[in-house]
Amino acid sequence: MRIGFYQFSPEFGAIDKNLNKMASTLLTTEADLIVFPELANSGYLFLNSAEAESLAEPIPGPSTEFLTKLAVERGCHIVMGMPEKSGQKRFNSAVLIGPQGVVGSYRKAHLFDEEKLHFQPGDRGFPVFEIHGVKIGILICFDHIFPESARTLALQGVQILCYPSNLVLPTYGQLTTRVRAIENHLFTILANRCGTDDRGSKQLSYTGGSQIVAPDGLVLASAPEEREQLSVVEIDPSQACGKGVSLRNDLFADRRPDLYKL
Amino acid sequence: MRIGFYQFSPEFGAIDKNLNKMASTLLTTEADLIVFPELANSGYLFLNSAEAESLAEPIPGPSTEFLTKLAVERGCHIVMGMPEKSGQKRFNSAVLIGPQGVVGSYRKAHLFDEEKLHFQPGDRGFPVFEIHGVKIGILICFDHIFPESARTLALQGVQILCYPSNLVLPTYGQLTTRVRAIENHLFTILANRCGTDDRGSKQLSYTGGSQIVAPDGLVLASAPEEREQLSVVEIDPSQACGKGVSLRNDLFADRRPDLYKL
Repeated sequence: MRIGFYQFSPEFGAIDKNLNKMASTLLTTEADLIVFPELANSGYLFLNSAEAESLAEPIPGPSTEFLTKLAVERGCHIVMGMPEKSGQKRFNSAVLIGPQGVVGSYRKAHLFDEEKLHFQPGDRGFPVFEIHGVKIGILICFDHIFPESARTLALQGVQILCYPSNLVLPTYGQLTTRVRAIENHLFTILANRCGTDDRGSKQLSYTGGSQIVAPDGLVLASAPEEREQLSVVEIDPSQACGKGVSLRNDLFADRRPDLYKL
Repeated sequence: MRIGFYQFSPEFGAIDKNLNKMASTLLTTEADLIVFPELANSGYLFLNSAEAESLAEPIPGPSTEFLTKLAVERGCHIVMGMPEKSGQKRFNSAVLIGPQGVVGSYRKAHLFDEEKLHFQPGDRGFPVFEIHGVKIGILICFDHIFPESARTLALQGVQILCYPSNLVLPTYGQLTTRVRAIENHLFTILANRCGTDDRGSKQLSYTGGSQIVAPDGLVLASAPEEREQLSVVEIDPSQACGKGVSLRNDLFADRRPDLYKL
């Protein structure tokens, strides 16, 4: 199975431009699963909730229809972060899309900083999706720092954990998503954005450093901090099925829920 | 508060020699809390359970009495791993000792590989100790890979998390103990051993790389892979009290136990 990420710098508010950029990049590679950053169609740095409202879309909606056509053309599955409009509510969501359309979506459970002003926290837990018999989970950016989020998905059998991200805290997400792979013995794909946002009254710099990590902790691909990069690697997802780390140790069977107070 | 580790290579079975080595090293520094490796008095690579039985001691016992005298002389607290004998059972334990004697002990909850042949798994949970008003937790080596163990201690207010270790899996413990500091916003002290054990039918190499990590993830001190090293740094333990990582984020208040399935 060929899995990858596309690290780039979405332009704020330019949904069509961002979608077309992702589409044209996909033409240059063959992948079975590609992960784009958090809020990759809309951009991240909202000045107010009216901006978030104007860029949010229902799922399915125009952006997911665009991605579905792309998935059909390229014969692949896509994970992309986008602002979701659901009735009167908005969520910082990510979709999993294949040639058949929307496979499912995830609503970010742990909102970061000003996201709390513009989005509701996720209300649907941590769903598990399946493509070609492989179990896929999605977490978004700041979810990375809460070990319980990855653990919840891993205990449900997730083999590939996708992290569409817009990380701003230096090194944290790159370290944690490597450790999530190790402690849960699964593949992680961190698809972070790069670049900076300067919207007059607000500025942000994003940390890039997207990476794909194997269940043994090996970094299979990584991007620099500042440059756009598309990376695709071939993996065997069955490597994430067993949880053995020594002759007598299994990372799940050895857990001690009788002693944990969480 | 001055906290540190002493990374060295305990000699198998040479309890007096190992204790004296730790004592003479402590003469070269001033520390308030020093952490020695896992099974630092006995050595690690037992060929059979009879060896573990012959080296195990009650707590308190001869080794803790030796350390108490040392703690009085040096005016410090000490964390050291040692095999514990308790009735018919043996545990892979660690003690916290001060000038007043044994403050408490911890029995390793997650045993690694052949340790399962020689020790019972810990049966007392994850206790929290206090010295000079600072909350201290102890985990031993392989406990590091289970995020629930550090989380359980952190949620009880632990500010400094000590990891006496004999790590053999490359880089895992060095990565995880840095992430445990970040995700729980506390100090971690990884006191790993270095060197190799060659006991005829069994060999092991230990990974060194002991380190002290601050709540923001900064590595305050680190040791090389192969050499003995004593490191002590000055910290302000109150930095581990707040859990804020942005204007609107608190690592504990933002948890979503309503969504976790653990």
